[in-house]
Amino acid sequence: MNKNYYSSSFKLGILGGGQLGKMILAETRRLDIRTKVLDPSSEAPGRIASNEFVQGSLTDYQTVMDFAKDCDVLTIEIENVNIQALKDLQKAGVKVYPKPETLEIIKDKCIQKQFYADHEIPTAPFANFNSKDEFLETLDTQQDWELPFVWKAATGGYDGKGVSIIRSNEDIQNVADIPGLIEKLIPFEKELAVVVARNPSGEVKSFPVVEMDFHPTANLVEYVFSPSTISDDLQDKARNLAESIAHKFEHIGLLAVEMFLSSNGEILINEVAPRVHNSGHLSIEGNVANQFDQHLRAILDLPLGSTQIVKPAVMVNLTGEDNYKGPVVYDGIEELLSLEGVYIHLYGKAETRPFRKMGHITITSDNLDEARAKAKIVKEKIKVISK
Amino acid sequence: MNKNYYSSSFKLGILGGGQLGKMILAETRRLDIRTKVLDPSSEAPGRIASNEFVQGSLTDYQTVMDFAKDCDVLTIEIENVNIQALKDLQKAGVKVYPKPETLEIIKDKCIQKQFYADHEIPTAPFANFNSKDEFLETLDTQQDWELPFVWKAATGGYDGKGVSIIRSNEDIQNVADIPGLIEKLIPFEKELAVVVARNPSGEVKSFPVVEMDFHPTANLVEYVFSPSTISDDLQDKARNLAESIAHKFEHIGLLAVEMFLSSNGEILINEVAPRVHNSGHLSIEGNVANQFDQHLRAILDLPLGSTQIVKPAVMVNLTGEDNYKGPVVYDGIEELLSLEGVYIHLYGKAETRPFRKMGHITITSDNLDEARAKAKIVKEKIKVISK
Repeated sequence: MNKNYYSSSFKLGILGGGQLGKMILAETRRLDIRTKVLDPSSEAPGRIASNEFVQGSLTDYQTVMDFAKDCDVLTIEIENVNIQALKDLQKAGVKVYPKPETLEIIKDKCIQKQFYADHEIPTAPFANFNSKDEFLETLDTQQDWELPFVWKAATGGYDGKGVSIIRSNEDIQNVADIPGLIEKLIPFEKELAVVVARNPSGEVKSFPVVEMDFHPTANLVEYVFSPSTISDDLQDKARNLAESIAHKFEHIGLLAVEMFLSSNGEILINEVAPRVHNSGHLSIEGNVANQFDQHLRAILDLPLGSTQIVKPAVMVNLTGEDNYKGPVVYDGIEELLSLEGVYIHLYGKAETRPFRKMGHITITSDNLDEARAKAKIVKEKIKVISK
Repeated sequence: MNKNYYSSSFKLGILGGGQLGKMILAETRRLDIRTKVLDPSSEAPGRIASNEFVQGSLTDYQTVMDFAKDCDVLTIEIENVNIQALKDLQKAGVKVYPKPETLEIIKDKCIQKQFYADHEIPTAPFANFNSKDEFLETLDTQQDWELPFVWKAATGGYDGKGVSIIRSNEDIQNVADIPGLIEKLIPFEKELAVVVARNPSGEVKSFPVVEMDFHPTANLVEYVFSPSTISDDLQDKARNLAESIAHKFEHIGLLAVEMFLSSNGEILINEVAPRVHNSGHLSIEGNVANQFDQHLRAILDLPLGSTQIVKPAVMVNLTGEDNYKGPVVYDGIEELLSLEGVYIHLYGKAETRPFRKMGHITITSDNLDEARAKAKIVKEKIKVISK
């Protein structure tokens, strides 16, 4: 079958035009695939480079229906979209990937956790609740919730929001009266991620394991490293686990699987994102196919690309400095341009604010230690400030 | 000095929105540099991904003046533009790179050749003329024009047009009555190219030598290989020559230098193009910085990027099959997607016609022979046809 997507009237809809949408568009331009992007902001990074841009709400049923009715395939760059609209579009013949049913499970962290429990996927012990009262009751009736533990909002969590560590009775009293879950705080060695792709034909391919370092206060990914330095056995285990989750969800598109390597050598699922992901950005320079290319291949039912490592790589997120808010200035950027193997990606946001993701930088080198050392220099040199 | 181009009101104008413009835009998107593109076609590949697109003539003085008056820097992706407008824009304070004076020399092959002669740059013996009569007179009065030799139109030559080999008296009689030059047909071993960049601060950096194979009838580049297999000494010589030409032109931006390696081991300049070039496309996947990134760095007076080879690479041009004209279909593309290290670039032209450049494919591998073998397979599998 000849899938004649290229330079044709075929149309791919993308819900969300943030940086992830923008980087998907780079691949659609390379293959000349027609795109239509919906985003609430008129200054969305994914506005330019789309064939059509519509400004509107991602969570409003009618807006999403109207936007996507002339799309052949519809995908997302953010989970917080109107799922009922996706279901109805799917019924109307639009191919919606990831499938709304998968998105529904993943979008709600309580349902996602229950899915792991039901499918015997290793994850930290947890308890779900619908309200603050139920949360407090859980603590009263179950014996094993010693401080500290993790609290997560069921929905709306993103980039460190909606997650906190409960360390004291005061923290317990301050928990929001919303649905959520609590989870045992597992002592871990490392945080790992595997990006895996699955297409409608059932082909599955995972990227090599990466390691993540988080910013201590903002709970944002600060560094991502590839390849991981854990043993080959553990890497195989992590990739197999990620692939099996993609199968169990019967997922279509990219799935980013975040994992803990616990102090006693176990690999536990933290959470998954049904889309391209921050942990995969370094694949643009570091791997044969990159995650954005791979997502496109997956949702268009094309053969998946090779995920082989081209060079060891480190990714640094470029976030707004504390105390700066306003028109962005990238201070120190020219010094970085003179360093070999430093790839700067600016998302095209006009305004900075503290911890806002404004871009990322990937550093490649023939060996990981060198790339890590250079990443530290990069991070010291560049500051995202405002005029 | 902080050159605050990124996510700011700084504006880069690009004359021409063909595939070269399109690939420059990929880099401006990555760094969020605001662009404005002028092209005569409403369906120009470089329309999408530019911030502003203007449809209009590149050779009309007033159109170019009106287009570029609000640009901070102006560049080109094609030589055939109104040079008087560029000169007047330069006077009005727009930074025009390449400089109109350089463009004027390079654009006319007769003046370009004379420049080489004046600057002792090795090139094949030649004679310039302004008309067919002058051409015939040259043959009569100069003893050394034995058949076969090369005829070139002074201007307007592009992708094999405006160049022919004169093999017979009939060919001599058929020569057009336009300004041009004739050149000795040098027996050569290989055709080489070096892409070199120079910025306003005078920093110069060349890419490693590539080799080119031309299509026997269409006179279009069919394959480009990197790295070249000629000796290190010859490679150094070729790169030094290319760098010295960039200096002699006081060129700013990218300069693609096409050379012959003659049968007796000499390196002779064939011609140069003052812009990103087909011979540099494989740098997107094959080198640390790619030629489009490098051109941007050069014209913005940023530090030039590393031109180091990441992987051996072969580029194949994807041209319209003979006998097909109409809405394009890329037959066999899916088979290519399942091959490792095969990168497909489609330019986004809706219609194919014989030998039209519709895209290119780069094949990377850990060794060049493997990449070459895969390139042959790629070329056999994919056909650019129409419905």
